Amino acid sequence: MSDGPLELALLFDFFGDLLTDTQREYFDLYYNDDMSLAEVAELKGVSRPAVLDAVKKAKSAMRRLEDKTGVVKRFTEMRLGLMELQRKVSELAAALPEGAEMRLAQEIANDIEELKNGI
Amino acid sequence: MSDGPLELALLFDFFGDLLTDTQREYFDLYYNDDMSLAEVAELKGVSRPAVLDAVKKAKSAMRRLEDKTGVVKRFTEMRLGLMELQRKVSELAAALPEGAEMRLAQEIANDIEELKNGI
Repeated sequence: MSDGPLELALLFDFFGDLLTDTQREYFDLYYNDDMSLAEVAELKGVSRPAVLDAVKKAKSAMRRLEDKTGVVKRFTEMRLGLMELQRKVSELAAALPEGAEMRLAQEIANDIEELKNGI
Repeated sequence: MSDGPLELALLFDFFGDLLTDTQREYFDLYYNDDMSLAEVAELKGVSRPAVLDAVKKAKSAMRRLEDKTGVVKRFTEMRLGLMELQRKVSELAAALPEGAEMRLAQEIANDIEELKNGI
């Protein structure tokens, strides 16, 4: 898996609570609050290398968890599958005449949207 | 989460590779291969309490991982959501006259089935 912001966000979402308190806090400030290493260091009263070290360890711990569980991969595949479903259901709804069946198709499209957002 | 066979199977599916080799092996023999503690002990040449201890530790390690990540809960909810989707899509397919729209609805029902089985 690449190191893109989405992948890191998903890793943190699933595995953040398995990090040490320090790793979680510094990672969160650096990646999610967009602070620089120097800013995190100043805020927490530690050295910049200490922040970098914690952030690196957080990333490698979460990558190890992903390698062993495949959770983020499965989640990403599920999301792609739901998007494809949504495309087909919208196509179906558009092809149906106004009426109960069309409304049911639209309801299904909404259900898929909710399911996707709830992951 | 309860201690039912499905819950344990899901926990092991997601978190089994994060256990120690011994925990994983004994848990697998006991729960998935339906061996008794005494049978596992005999097979591995260790005492029955040693097997029980490893199985208990495996369970509590996996429960801790679930408490921190909510992975099994999220995927169980996703599965229930997909089952409900499937019910509605089948209802829709049954209400449509023979034709392209009905076939598309059936295709969508099949896609949902695949997505559900791929979790």
